Amino acid sequence: MVKNTQVIFSRIPDSYIPEVGKDMAIKETEFDLDAPLSNGQFILKQLSLSIDSYMRGRMRDPSVKSYVDAFEIGKPLKCGTMSLVTKSNNPKFKEGDLVQSSGGLFEQYTLVQDEKQAEEYQVKNDPRDTGLPPSYYLGLLGMPGMTAYVGMMKIGRPKKGKTLYVSAAASSVGQLAGQIGKVYGMTVVGSAGADDKTVYLKEIGFDEAFNYKNDDISTKLKEVCPKGIDIYFDNVGGKTLEAAIANCNNYGRIVACGMISQYAEHPETAHNLMQIIVKRLRVEGFIVSDEADMKEQFRKDVTQWLLDGKINYKESVAEGIEKAPEALIDVLQGKNLGKQIIKVADE
Amino acid sequence: MVKNTQVIFSRIPDSYIPEVGKDMAIKETEFDLDAPLSNGQFILKQLSLSIDSYMRGRMRDPSVKSYVDAFEIGKPLKCGTMSLVTKSNNPKFKEGDLVQSSGGLFEQYTLVQDEKQAEEYQVKNDPRDTGLPPSYYLGLLGMPGMTAYVGMMKIGRPKKGKTLYVSAAASSVGQLAGQIGKVYGMTVVGSAGADDKTVYLKEIGFDEAFNYKNDDISTKLKEVCPKGIDIYFDNVGGKTLEAAIANCNNYGRIVACGMISQYAEHPETAHNLMQIIVKRLRVEGFIVSDEADMKEQFRKDVTQWLLDGKINYKESVAEGIEKAPEALIDVLQGKNLGKQIIKVADE
Repeated sequence: MVKNTQVIFSRIPDSYIPEVGKDMAIKETEFDLDAPLSNGQFILKQLSLSIDSYMRGRMRDPSVKSYVDAFEIGKPLKCGTMSLVTKSNNPKFKEGDLVQSSGGLFEQYTLVQDEKQAEEYQVKNDPRDTGLPPSYYLGLLGMPGMTAYVGMMKIGRPKKGKTLYVSAAASSVGQLAGQIGKVYGMTVVGSAGADDKTVYLKEIGFDEAFNYKNDDISTKLKEVCPKGIDIYFDNVGGKTLEAAIANCNNYGRIVACGMISQYAEHPETAHNLMQIIVKRLRVEGFIVSDEADMKEQFRKDVTQWLLDGKINYKESVAEGIEKAPEALIDVLQGKNLGKQIIKVADE
Repeated sequence: MVKNTQVIFSRIPDSYIPEVGKDMAIKETEFDLDAPLSNGQFILKQLSLSIDSYMRGRMRDPSVKSYVDAFEIGKPLKCGTMSLVTKSNNPKFKEGDLVQSSGGLFEQYTLVQDEKQAEEYQVKNDPRDTGLPPSYYLGLLGMPGMTAYVGMMKIGRPKKGKTLYVSAAASSVGQLAGQIGKVYGMTVVGSAGADDKTVYLKEIGFDEAFNYKNDDISTKLKEVCPKGIDIYFDNVGGKTLEAAIANCNNYGRIVACGMISQYAEHPETAHNLMQIIVKRLRVEGFIVSDEADMKEQFRKDVTQWLLDGKINYKESVAEGIEKAPEALIDVLQGKNLGKQIIKVADE
């Protein structure tokens, strides 16, 4: 038997920032690595976990419907995971395979019980071919990266010489969205909530970056987007969306990717929606899981851009699964710089 | 010399509803029907004027930019006009031609001074071929009808068996938008602000119609759109938009055509924009004047539907140009039933 630490969803938070110990708890259990496996079963050892702000949206009353199910009280949190198969009685998952999930369990070891549960996991041995770290497949080459790619390619449609504005631009989604704009020759402006983040954004090629906490966003956008905004990649919503609409050019497109401001207790909203008509804007939402047919092109393009040095990528890595609750709080408070990863174990 | 009554824009209104006498004034002038005409000049006798709520948007400080210029203080109001050429020294406009404008002057007679002013006017002798009243070319077959057509065909994209909701559905735009939905086999629901309007909407084929003043809009929409809303044709914005978003199906489309609620002094806005992402909605604005290439198909389709009895059309006609200010106030207060027309003169 080995120790199997789990990160449990224990209560629906009272406020936007969940509490460690009350809303998320560490639970120590045991796991039998040599347990006999029925047909279809296999054992996963988690290597890396992805921490994403949208996890907060799953900490809700399950009767409130959304595009992704609520977490179950008393069960481990779920998000992106990269894992190693350590034992298998399932021909699709071989011992030594790397396995990815966008809803893997936050625990050190998982016994995948049956074919239904196995559907949550996909063999992903790509890191062995590309030489890229497996954790990249949780961020840049995983769901967050694909979110940026789908939003930009399907809705934003980058165009040389035009201006792109990305909010929460230092997030794992935001940094790729902006860099895709640069690959296509756009002028790219990003906002973030800390000065070290805006420095980082300029380092990775953003033309302009500002700390939204220091300025009136609309005034700042007028200054840094003198030709107006043609594509706004929205990760924030609320007053940031309002400021972007105010600075959009005619026929601008707003990629409605996330609205993190709307999880606040008294969220602000945009009051200038009339401009959608006046400026003939298109505001369009999407959910990355709808766009599975873009996955292959996404992986191909982004891997190539990365290997060619056209895009950069930064991770913020916390070591040890017990760091997951604090890391989620950091992400919700915008403290992480780069994609937040929990390193659980080496291969 | 004949009397030439003008309707003058005399002051920027203090509140949403302009005041007769203060903001709009009747001015009696004289006109020489037999005046000698320079090259390119011609004389128009106005037959019918169109009264549209968007005129209120032009009664603003000219420094506030919008998709259409502000009215000029001391000059006649402008909107859709149907006129008759009574004398001409311009080969493009012959005596006896019917002439349409979307920005014609609100006066009994107009001396069109030069080629630049003449660009505001187009010969429109169609009523002589179709036998339809010339005033129809100010509403159903004019700018309001084309607005409904462009919004439905370019953005909404009607689909058999799906549900369309139209707000301000008894307006000249709304009634055609809904009836286009019916032509394409949709279930069509409309809201309006008076019981006689909801009765009228059912008469012209809407499946359901409700008075938004009598109900919580979102609750009512849930009841009358049991399968959810697939297309929302928005003429209102604000809380109505919010209620429609709340009842939209996944992948719903919102045609952002008008937001009359936003002219109020303290306009409400929608607070559930996060649902644009959750439901993958597309919200898109448009301005009819951008879509000149759809004009021919619009005229062809709508004329045919009308002649085939597939769509109905109602006008609310006030007699005499001096009725224009009160008629505009009626439109802004939602008192008119059917397209508001001022009849100025017979041919």
